[in-house]
Amino acid sequence: MGITQSDSRNLSMMMDLYELTMANGYFREGDTQKRAVFDVFYRRNPDGAGFAIFAGLEQVIEYIENMHFSSYDIEYFKSLGLFDDGFLRYLSEFKFSGDIYAFPEGTVMYPNEPVLTVVAPIIDAQLVETAILAQINHQSLIATKTQRIVRAARGRAVSDFGARRAHNMDAAVYGARAAYIGGAAGTATVLAGERFHIPVGGTMAHSWVMFYKDEFEAFKKYAETYPDDTVLLIDTYDALRSGIPNAIRTAHEILEPMGKRLKGVRLDSGDLAYLTKRMRVMLDEAGLEDCKITVSNSLDEKTIHSIISQGACIDNFGVGERLITAKSDPVFGAVYKISAVEENGAFSPRIKVSETVEKITNPGLKKVYRIYSDNGHAVADLITGYDETIDMSAPYAYIDPERPWENRHFRGCTAKNLQTCVIKEGKRVSGTRSLQELQSYVKSQLANEIWDEEQRFENPHKHYLDMSPGYYKMKMDLLHSFEME
Amino acid sequence: MGITQSDSRNLSMMMDLYELTMANGYFREGDTQKRAVFDVFYRRNPDGAGFAIFAGLEQVIEYIENMHFSSYDIEYFKSLGLFDDGFLRYLSEFKFSGDIYAFPEGTVMYPNEPVLTVVAPIIDAQLVETAILAQINHQSLIATKTQRIVRAARGRAVSDFGARRAHNMDAAVYGARAAYIGGAAGTATVLAGERFHIPVGGTMAHSWVMFYKDEFEAFKKYAETYPDDTVLLIDTYDALRSGIPNAIRTAHEILEPMGKRLKGVRLDSGDLAYLTKRMRVMLDEAGLEDCKITVSNSLDEKTIHSIISQGACIDNFGVGERLITAKSDPVFGAVYKISAVEENGAFSPRIKVSETVEKITNPGLKKVYRIYSDNGHAVADLITGYDETIDMSAPYAYIDPERPWENRHFRGCTAKNLQTCVIKEGKRVSGTRSLQELQSYVKSQLANEIWDEEQRFENPHKHYLDMSPGYYKMKMDLLHSFEME
Repeated sequence: MGITQSDSRNLSMMMDLYELTMANGYFREGDTQKRAVFDVFYRRNPDGAGFAIFAGLEQVIEYIENMHFSSYDIEYFKSLGLFDDGFLRYLSEFKFSGDIYAFPEGTVMYPNEPVLTVVAPIIDAQLVETAILAQINHQSLIATKTQRIVRAARGRAVSDFGARRAHNMDAAVYGARAAYIGGAAGTATVLAGERFHIPVGGTMAHSWVMFYKDEFEAFKKYAETYPDDTVLLIDTYDALRSGIPNAIRTAHEILEPMGKRLKGVRLDSGDLAYLTKRMRVMLDEAGLEDCKITVSNSLDEKTIHSIISQGACIDNFGVGERLITAKSDPVFGAVYKISAVEENGAFSPRIKVSETVEKITNPGLKKVYRIYSDNGHAVADLITGYDETIDMSAPYAYIDPERPWENRHFRGCTAKNLQTCVIKEGKRVSGTRSLQELQSYVKSQLANEIWDEEQRFENPHKHYLDMSPGYYKMKMDLLHSFEME
Repeated sequence: MGITQSDSRNLSMMMDLYELTMANGYFREGDTQKRAVFDVFYRRNPDGAGFAIFAGLEQVIEYIENMHFSSYDIEYFKSLGLFDDGFLRYLSEFKFSGDIYAFPEGTVMYPNEPVLTVVAPIIDAQLVETAILAQINHQSLIATKTQRIVRAARGRAVSDFGARRAHNMDAAVYGARAAYIGGAAGTATVLAGERFHIPVGGTMAHSWVMFYKDEFEAFKKYAETYPDDTVLLIDTYDALRSGIPNAIRTAHEILEPMGKRLKGVRLDSGDLAYLTKRMRVMLDEAGLEDCKITVSNSLDEKTIHSIISQGACIDNFGVGERLITAKSDPVFGAVYKISAVEENGAFSPRIKVSETVEKITNPGLKKVYRIYSDNGHAVADLITGYDETIDMSAPYAYIDPERPWENRHFRGCTAKNLQTCVIKEGKRVSGTRSLQELQSYVKSQLANEIWDEEQRFENPHKHYLDMSPGYYKMKMDLLHSFEME
């Protein structure tokens, strides 16, 4: 483990100022031990999709464990003239002391269910809001987008080529991590490869070809340097009239005398369907049937779907700006909402009412279960109170909050509690999983558990988020009591 | 200057793998001293705008000065099995040794002109591509977007509230920096405030109101804690029926007895035009004419323009996700293209031809001038060869490349060379300017130099990018010679 292996920055100052103004207020009231419950959830799947992928948890845990304020930070706070000295002394010794429960990283998630829950003294819980949201929102956005692109590629490899268009360095590095979780075969970003052991790939830019006097000379030099890994960029001048003929010549005149084969060609412009079909014919006619075709150039799931349907001959996709920025829908809107406050040793539920019905929150400390039918498909998710036990060995009555009048039961189902404790009293209690494991976990859920109908790009089935009768009643009672005030 | 003042990460590994495979190839050919010229330019203004703002240069300079590879990095390279040992020894002692020329940070820029030029040994020039592009693309994107939002707000303050929806931590911190350059009044992001001395702001979240038994109690506690800076979030339950009445009561019962005034209220949901007009009447009728109204909630330049036209009573805008992700057009597409290679002591121009005419590059080492009419307006930008001198004291004949047959002259104009040397032989030679200076520089260009017609949101005037006759001839000759091959 070297010095650049992990990110040694102290990100404790990564918060909105209001976390601190509120924390100072709570401190002033003596509320340093009173606990609260906050849920992270989101309201809408990006791109009109049927689900999203939960990512970024590992970095949340690292951030929580390392959280502290330096004397320089305290001096900065003092300079703002907003905070009591006592509070600043408190901050100078602050460590996060609460508990965090979360879905395993890589879990398929749906709107309005708590994917991460913080149970902590109100100050602790408030201070971590911004960093948790930024990390989860970013990585979930990119993992979800990448999984869409991978799905559209139908088995062909998709690699992240996006660093130069990422929203700065973290977006490139953690974006590559999230892309890998979502199913990318690798990344071009070296720092991500080094830090997270993601396979890295890349061969040449147009500048390599332009540096030399002519295209064949450039290809020849490259083949001599990387005879086992020669992938040639063929569109600097003209893909069909110059690039492919020179690539074929390189294969025959340079590589084959060494006993090597031309590994691949890359096309970065023009009509990718038309050109790759022509390229495939030319390569095959030259006896280079094993030469792979990689394409890049402003790709996303829609373009990939469309050119594959037109018979494009493509083995690998290099996907840049539209993956690393999730261009079609670049905001993942997870929020962090208080759901309970400790009063006399018990958690008293809180609800945010709103004129917009979708913005009404789910109150209280709770559990989320994924309900599986006997063939292993996830038929619904279920919210219950934290202390409820559920028994699926008999038909289980539940409420669909969109049709509360219906009499519904799960029959022959099993239930999996989705949140597990990852931080206990400020310390990590969960193990870490490799990125390869996380990628496999995503893949296996989509292959075995998640209905194809939810994986459709257009107008997918909406996953059910049901409630136990007890939890639903508690929520309704709370809304009523509020209405009476 | 404390430890968290600057970003101590080593970002030297922030590159695409192909920079290294190419560099290894050049090393193998003995091309460690042969210099090349690379230009950074972009092809299209985001959001169909008439211009963009150049930002991120300061971080490019820091990155270049700090660039080096640790022994851990070298071990990682070795593990990839792609590179010669000699090259890895070379990298272990690598420092960037070239020169960099750039527009001053904050300069209004236009498509297809080199805003930053690297003149360096080919390996040095290649290795810095990805990090330069990621930094310039991200900060220019956010500075440009923010300037649009600020323009739409017509003098009202715009603050960055976006950290939680940013594409990870750098996007929040450098995004806040870029937003400030673009004209934001401040940020909510504490780490950005600490690192860049940007004014920070923020008061309370809905959780503060929900933590207490009722809204008035929450407001009262806040006013007692921050009597000089009481800004109350009024839409946790119902803005007009509960929030504003409780805010007025807080002003009268808590603040006024202390001789204090209610500084402001914030609205984060609902119809911002309708509600703020009602709020203004209610506050004024209660004698709180000086209480400012801040709004937030998925704002951007379009919504702001629209609600202002409807007479919304708003003093400050808090803008989050649509600013920090530049949601409407989240990719800034600056590229890094080789334009010349040193041959026998001179720079031989290189051109990338393309079937797409807009993708043909501008070859050679060159200068960019901004041409001003006698009233100080920037009438065009002009590309010349690097060694040309231009004399504006007499009518100056130039070529408009879109109408090369026309006989055109600048008369009574002045010319300013836009690129200055910022890195000489690997060392910074430019001073640093404060963010306040950069913000003023942007503001002053837009007030005094840039035509209103270019600042229009809809179908703005397209700035002219002209060429000196000599430069135009060189480019045409190069295209011809290529065509003849």
